[in-house]
Amino acid sequence: MNEKIRCIRNKMNSLNLQGMIISNPTNIFYLLGIQAEGILLLTRKENIFITDGRYIEAVQKTITIDDEIVVFDRKDVDCYDEENFFMFCENVGFEEEYVTYAKYKEYMHRYKINNLVETEKIIEKQRMIKDNKEIENIIKACKLTDDCFKHICSFIKKQMTEKEIAMEIERYFKENGADGLAFETIVASGINSSMPHAVPTDKKIESGDVITIDFGCKYNGYSSDMTRTIFVDFVQDYIKKVYDLVLKNQLQVEKEIKEGISTKTLFKMPESDFKVNGFDLIHALGHGVGLDVHEMPYINPKDEMFLKENMIITNEPGIYIPGKFGIRVEDTVLVTKTGAEVLTKSNKNYVIIKNK
Amino acid sequence: MNEKIRCIRNKMNSLNLQGMIISNPTNIFYLLGIQAEGILLLTRKENIFITDGRYIEAVQKTITIDDEIVVFDRKDVDCYDEENFFMFCENVGFEEEYVTYAKYKEYMHRYKINNLVETEKIIEKQRMIKDNKEIENIIKACKLTDDCFKHICSFIKKQMTEKEIAMEIERYFKENGADGLAFETIVASGINSSMPHAVPTDKKIESGDVITIDFGCKYNGYSSDMTRTIFVDFVQDYIKKVYDLVLKNQLQVEKEIKEGISTKTLFKMPESDFKVNGFDLIHALGHGVGLDVHEMPYINPKDEMFLKENMIITNEPGIYIPGKFGIRVEDTVLVTKTGAEVLTKSNKNYVIIKNK
Repeated sequence: MNEKIRCIRNKMNSLNLQGMIISNPTNIFYLLGIQAEGILLLTRKENIFITDGRYIEAVQKTITIDDEIVVFDRKDVDCYDEENFFMFCENVGFEEEYVTYAKYKEYMHRYKINNLVETEKIIEKQRMIKDNKEIENIIKACKLTDDCFKHICSFIKKQMTEKEIAMEIERYFKENGADGLAFETIVASGINSSMPHAVPTDKKIESGDVITIDFGCKYNGYSSDMTRTIFVDFVQDYIKKVYDLVLKNQLQVEKEIKEGISTKTLFKMPESDFKVNGFDLIHALGHGVGLDVHEMPYINPKDEMFLKENMIITNEPGIYIPGKFGIRVEDTVLVTKTGAEVLTKSNKNYVIIKNK
Repeated sequence: MNEKIRCIRNKMNSLNLQGMIISNPTNIFYLLGIQAEGILLLTRKENIFITDGRYIEAVQKTITIDDEIVVFDRKDVDCYDEENFFMFCENVGFEEEYVTYAKYKEYMHRYKINNLVETEKIIEKQRMIKDNKEIENIIKACKLTDDCFKHICSFIKKQMTEKEIAMEIERYFKENGADGLAFETIVASGINSSMPHAVPTDKKIESGDVITIDFGCKYNGYSSDMTRTIFVDFVQDYIKKVYDLVLKNQLQVEKEIKEGISTKTLFKMPESDFKVNGFDLIHALGHGVGLDVHEMPYINPKDEMFLKENMIITNEPGIYIPGKFGIRVEDTVLVTKTGAEVLTKSNKNYVIIKNK
């Protein structure tokens, strides 16, 4: 059977679930490797994927006999079939964080389910640990991101707008083999860089600007996420001090990342050092990266978790001085048994754009 | 009080709802005119919008005293406040089509609600009828779409790829005052045009191609939606026949659209005429257009509804011949008491691209 589904079925056993309804398209892509609208039903006997005419051909091409998945065209499934899928299932799981209340009620009714129960993100938890193919895709997405950064450093000129730079990043990704953006690109210059989630504006790049560029692409569905803060013409000394503090902490976290370390411990390192220096760490230190650019685990002071081999996470401390400027340095990193393998490899020293 | 909220409160009264939780960001934008993360609570006494520090300033700037909305920063709201918001409310409504099952349970618990009840899209139903400001925004979005079509007809050259054309459409919208795309642009040429929901590919434009371009933008949050099917160098006679049949029906539907007509009746017109000619209408004839590019009402054979003044809908019959080609012609249309005002005004005769 499809290895990823086999693991989910093991987990279902331990939770006393005899069936499961999977409707989140990201989870379906994770389990089946196909981007097709539909619903995946894990019943007592079978793995059933119900889709429609638009996708049947593509699905049949992707799925092999070894996957052990029965594919149906929606129009060939009648209500009698639906009522029988989960017969003799005491408990059927569903994705309570994805399914709307209206859908929840529809499922109960359509599939005649007595106990439709919450599954507490069993698929999302499994998605935290990447297999070799997933790692390869993320490495490719990170490589494209590094290449794009190199390109964008030579592309940026004074008097260009933040929007123009963001559009060039998107163009570069699309023309160089990425599926598209992993998320809306942040290009925040000068005073705009003081907002961690700034949206690109019509502000023009000027001499002396700090520019925070937070960007990433998708490759075969998998994401990259990198931030670099760069400078135009020169870097003022008081900005250098903040940059050095952020980078020092980013590198210290990088050193500590490995299987077994607590996400809380990781978060506390830059948080404490920033505090000593009169600053705060106002957002999470990082997050998992995969099919979603933000996914489990989250590296914040609330949700303690211990890193495991083959998790892929970001390491992104930042300092923001309201009304002045902000500095963030972020990499996408693979967790190994002995340390961190940094997948985004762009220059983290002062990158200074100098041109007419 | 804010007029849109006053209407919702009237509807709530008739449904015996003493309170309502609104969390769908599109509905919040509709009611408050602001794009801010947060939750809108209509309680017995007040309209409360709870957001966070990032948005407070922008929200305070947009909302006036006449709106009668109390704005809170999330960090100033404690669980004691939350438990009191809906005190003495017998029934509190929520958006069952938007809220996940996990959130539904969280709301019940957080706000100590006894009966959290489904509201059957009361806001979405109100959104069907546009006010003057909304109509103005959609007219502007349609105008930009017409301008973009004119531009793209002069931009397309043979050997360009579908993707390049789609990217140029996006660039044009962004550089000419649109917020962005209303949906992912469809550019489907030659055989690809036979799929109603084709995604732009690396296929190059060739002589003799049919090109279906389905596109639209957002302006102040409001959408436009238009399809034109154009030709490269020449139109073959058997394609002309299908084009003429689609356009004839599109114009007939246009003539019939006015307050009071049934959506089912509208759908049946092209469906019957296509059948007589040996073709099928395989998708809806149209849909409402507003903050969402697809919203109520839906013009299909299932959901009968009677059009009302100031609804804005699409009129988009299409014929698809598998493995060969497809033709669709679509306008965004304002319903008036006496007829249809077509908001997308681009040429619907044969548009033939001729260049080297």
